[in-house]
Amino acid sequence: MAGPIVAFQGERGAFSEEAAHKLLGRSIRLLPCETFAAAFARVARGKARYCLVPVENTLAGSVYENYDLLVENRLHIVGEVNLRIVHNLIAFPGTTRKNLRQVYSHPVALAQCGGFFRRHRRVAKVPFYDTAGAVKMLSERRIAGAAAIASRAAAAVYRARILQKNLEDHRENYTRFVLLARSATVARRANKVSLVFSTRNLPGALYKCLSVFALRDISLTKMESRPLRGRPWEYLFYVDFLGHVKEEHCRNALAHLSEVTDFLRILGCYRSARR
Amino acid sequence: MAGPIVAFQGERGAFSEEAAHKLLGRSIRLLPCETFAAAFARVARGKARYCLVPVENTLAGSVYENYDLLVENRLHIVGEVNLRIVHNLIAFPGTTRKNLRQVYSHPVALAQCGGFFRRHRRVAKVPFYDTAGAVKMLSERRIAGAAAIASRAAAAVYRARILQKNLEDHRENYTRFVLLARSATVARRANKVSLVFSTRNLPGALYKCLSVFALRDISLTKMESRPLRGRPWEYLFYVDFLGHVKEEHCRNALAHLSEVTDFLRILGCYRSARR
Repeated sequence: MAGPIVAFQGERGAFSEEAAHKLLGRSIRLLPCETFAAAFARVARGKARYCLVPVENTLAGSVYENYDLLVENRLHIVGEVNLRIVHNLIAFPGTTRKNLRQVYSHPVALAQCGGFFRRHRRVAKVPFYDTAGAVKMLSERRIAGAAAIASRAAAAVYRARILQKNLEDHRENYTRFVLLARSATVARRANKVSLVFSTRNLPGALYKCLSVFALRDISLTKMESRPLRGRPWEYLFYVDFLGHVKEEHCRNALAHLSEVTDFLRILGCYRSARR
Repeated sequence: MAGPIVAFQGERGAFSEEAAHKLLGRSIRLLPCETFAAAFARVARGKARYCLVPVENTLAGSVYENYDLLVENRLHIVGEVNLRIVHNLIAFPGTTRKNLRQVYSHPVALAQCGGFFRRHRRVAKVPFYDTAGAVKMLSERRIAGAAAIASRAAAAVYRARILQKNLEDHRENYTRFVLLARSATVARRANKVSLVFSTRNLPGALYKCLSVFALRDISLTKMESRPLRGRPWEYLFYVDFLGHVKEEHCRNALAHLSEVTDFLRILGCYRSARR
C-alpha cells in the first residue's frame, strides 16, 4: 500500500525530507515544492495528506514565513520532529578536497560553516537557492573543483560522494519541523499545544495572557511574536505549551485566555518531539 | 562645523539615510556600509559617532540580524525614529512607463509592491541586493525599459526621475530604526528603555520576568525572542518599555528583573519616536 503524500519545500534530498522520514518512516511519498506557501497549498487543496515545514532552528531562530503561513492558512499541526542539522561537503567525480575552489549552498548553510571557510581560504562560498538544489545542479553540470553543502539525504538522492562530514561550526544545531494536515486529529498521546493570539490593547495585556498558563503551572516551551498587518506596532503572539486540549486545567486556561485576547486560534495539539 | 558621522547599511539613498536625516537633521555626514555588522563596527572602532539600523518593519517584522548584533556588540541605543516606507518607481531617460519591462529592487521591496506587479503583468521583478543600489546600478548601466523601486532619497542622490509614487500595497508600512553610539548618554527627555535578558530555566520564568513590569504598571511596547546559541530551545528576550532608568519604579523593576534572570543588559534609555 502506498504511504501518505508529504509535501515539503526544497528539492529532493532537502533536510525536510530527512525530517519527514524520521517522523513518518520510509513508506511515505515525497512531494517537493518550490516554496513554503506551495507546500501549504498542496495540503489545503487535498493534493497531499501532510506538509512538513521548519519553524525554528537553534542557531538561526524562527522561520517567520512559516509562522505567517500558519495564520494565513487553515491547516492544523498534527506532529513535530527535531532534526540535528549535519552539513556535509558533497561532490561528484572531478572534484577532490585538493582541487576544491567553490562551494555552493543556501546562504544560511554557508554561514553555519564559517569555520570551514576560514580554514580553507582558497575556497569561495557561492550562495545558491537551496542546499539539495546545489547538489542537483552539480549532478547535472559537473563543475570541476566545485562542491555543495547539504544533507546526507541529498548525497544519496543524487548519488554523490561525501568528501567531509560535520562541516557545521556548532554541534548544537537543530531544526524543529511541524507536520500539518487539513483536519485536526488529536492523538491520545498528544502532550503539546500550539496557539496564536493577539492581546487587547490594554496595559499589562501580554502579562495577563501569560498568567492564564502560569497560574495553572502550565509550562510554555516557546513564544514568538509577529507584526499584526494593518495595525502598526501591534503583534500576534505564538505560544507552545505542554498539555492536552482535553485536560481540565488546559481547557480552563484556554477559556481564560479567550477572555483576555482579541483573537485566539488553536493551531494544533500533538505529540511533542524528543529534545 | 561638520556634523557627526553616521554609519548605515546600504548605498547612498537607502531608507536608512532618509531616517538619519529625519532624526538628526541635514548637517550629518553619511557613511554607507556594506553590511549591518560593518555599520556596528564603524562605531565600535570610533570611525563613526553613530550608526542607524532598522530593527522592525510593521509588515515584515523584526530585523533579527540587528537584534543579534545588539548583543554581540557593546553599543548603546541613544535614539530611535520611525519612517513611513514609501516605495517609488525610479528610472533614467530611456525608460518610460510604456516601455517598462524590468524592475530591480531588494526582494522585500518587490514583495511589498505585489499589487503593482499584478496590475502590470509584463513587468518582471528582478531581485537586487539593495533598493538604492538598484538605482545606482541603473545610473551606471542605463538599461532601457528597466526601473528600480527605492526611496525618494535614492532618486535625489542619483538624479533619477520618479515615474510613480506609493507603489507599496499597504500604507501602514513603517520601519523603526535605532541610533547606536559607543557611550551610553541618556537624554533628560528619555522615556523608553530597551533591554535583553535570558530567563532562569524554571516553570513560569518568563511570566515572572514580565511581572516586574506589570506589578508596577510599566507598559511594554515590544517583546522579541531569539535563540540562545549553544543552549538549544532556550531564548534571549528583548523588551522595550516606557520609562526612564532614573525613575524609582523603573529602577525597582530593573533590580527585581535581575533577581529572576540569568543574564540582563540594558541596551539603552532614549527618547521614543512619535508613532
